[in-house]
Amino acid sequence: MNDTATLSGATSDRSGGWLAVVGLGPGDPRWLLPEARSSIEAADHLVGYQTYLDMIPPEIVGDRQLHGSDNRVEIERAGLALDLAVRGQRVAVISSGDPGVFAMAAAVFEAQHADDAPAVWRTVDVTVVPGVTAALAAAAEAGAPLGHDFCVVSLSDNLKPWSIIERRVLAAMEADLVLALYNPVSRRRPTQLATAFDLIRSHRAPDTPVVLGRDVGRPEGTVSVVTLADLDLSVCDMRTVIIVGSTTTRIIPGAAGASRVYTPRTYPAV
Amino acid sequence: MNDTATLSGATSDRSGGWLAVVGLGPGDPRWLLPEARSSIEAADHLVGYQTYLDMIPPEIVGDRQLHGSDNRVEIERAGLALDLAVRGQRVAVISSGDPGVFAMAAAVFEAQHADDAPAVWRTVDVTVVPGVTAALAAAAEAGAPLGHDFCVVSLSDNLKPWSIIERRVLAAMEADLVLALYNPVSRRRPTQLATAFDLIRSHRAPDTPVVLGRDVGRPEGTVSVVTLADLDLSVCDMRTVIIVGSTTTRIIPGAAGASRVYTPRTYPAV
Repeated sequence: MNDTATLSGATSDRSGGWLAVVGLGPGDPRWLLPEARSSIEAADHLVGYQTYLDMIPPEIVGDRQLHGSDNRVEIERAGLALDLAVRGQRVAVISSGDPGVFAMAAAVFEAQHADDAPAVWRTVDVTVVPGVTAALAAAAEAGAPLGHDFCVVSLSDNLKPWSIIERRVLAAMEADLVLALYNPVSRRRPTQLATAFDLIRSHRAPDTPVVLGRDVGRPEGTVSVVTLADLDLSVCDMRTVIIVGSTTTRIIPGAAGASRVYTPRTYPAV
Repeated sequence: MNDTATLSGATSDRSGGWLAVVGLGPGDPRWLLPEARSSIEAADHLVGYQTYLDMIPPEIVGDRQLHGSDNRVEIERAGLALDLAVRGQRVAVISSGDPGVFAMAAAVFEAQHADDAPAVWRTVDVTVVPGVTAALAAAAEAGAPLGHDFCVVSLSDNLKPWSIIERRVLAAMEADLVLALYNPVSRRRPTQLATAFDLIRSHRAPDTPVVLGRDVGRPEGTVSVVTLADLDLSVCDMRTVIIVGSTTTRIIPGAAGASRVYTPRTYPAV
């Protein structure tokens, strides 16, 4: 199989029903892609986790029909969106960040192609509009910690065994990759973060830089730069993205209380 | 050390000289962040690889002073930008994609904090404006191959030893991570891509999905979906980003010549 498609991406040109999976970016309109905005504006229905629907600037929402739902019902939400599109409606499924990174894009394809999915769902034209995912936003605010090879892992074991998470964290440590951790902790998973950091601390020096980005791109957002030795895991929650440096990542002490972090493009020969 | 900074990001509010490292995204204005646009508009000088300066929509460039340079002179380019900012100028350093991912942000911090750098460079206020990096753009056009844990590696050994690249590719294979490869090949590095894929083919099944994104987000951009068995490495060049699926990544055969790829959010228990 070898299909090459020339890219279009013009959701608003399509007639009939369609489904666009849209990423809002971190939440600030300065980081909302023009295509994300235009896809929402071209839609009749906005489907998403209520918290994310609330992040859309009201002037963009207009009188579009909102279908907010709880967290952790991604497949049901995707099914609702596919049903609407089948009925000729124009539907934007809303994620924060990039919808392709630990978000709704994969859920829509999973729902659409599940063995027990209605066959008619497969006729729906699904497009994905990219966005600025949390790790890139936190990295930009902190400097350039992702300037060299890196790895992105979700610590949530709701949908995967903890053993594969440990294997991936270990692989990142052994290959000296910068490691971005999503979904570090939740009420249902209070202990895994500490377990992951036991592994990390056994491979990285105490002065390894760590970036904590919380709600980056929202008015209350913060970015912290600490060393692994000084890292207090209790400040991390579900809305935190954590970036652990490699052995080459450096901290630039900040003059005005804002340290910066970067990973040089050069890696020393061994 | 533990600095927490509330985020501002308002480059245009700053008086005096400043330096913003800006990502254009893949090149299409629909994927250019509002903050990237406003940072360019607030600058007096645009500094970058000439190919990227040429990507900026002319109406945004206006009468700003352009400082185009060759590829592979990142540190000299960063020095020029820092010199201009020291002299009170407002400077945007232009990258494609996200400037924090294998691009100019790390180079600016490296230049600014080199042992032999003029001390006055450290007084320059450097901000980084994120963007849509090539892997996210190609992933969105292809479906959702990055919907689960993944790893991002540059295959260029200009600035790092080949041994660390192989170690990282191997780590991604052994930990069953999706792997996005940047800078896969160049005239000076004609053989490494095949070597990397020898490693990949020894760990992944022939039906593993592979996405090839070339110039995604530009008018001539293409996205191909192939299997590892059918992959023809000779079609890859420096402008191609390659995404190799994990063992769970699936191809959805395309009705209209456009196959899609996604990595399910769920990973099976072993």
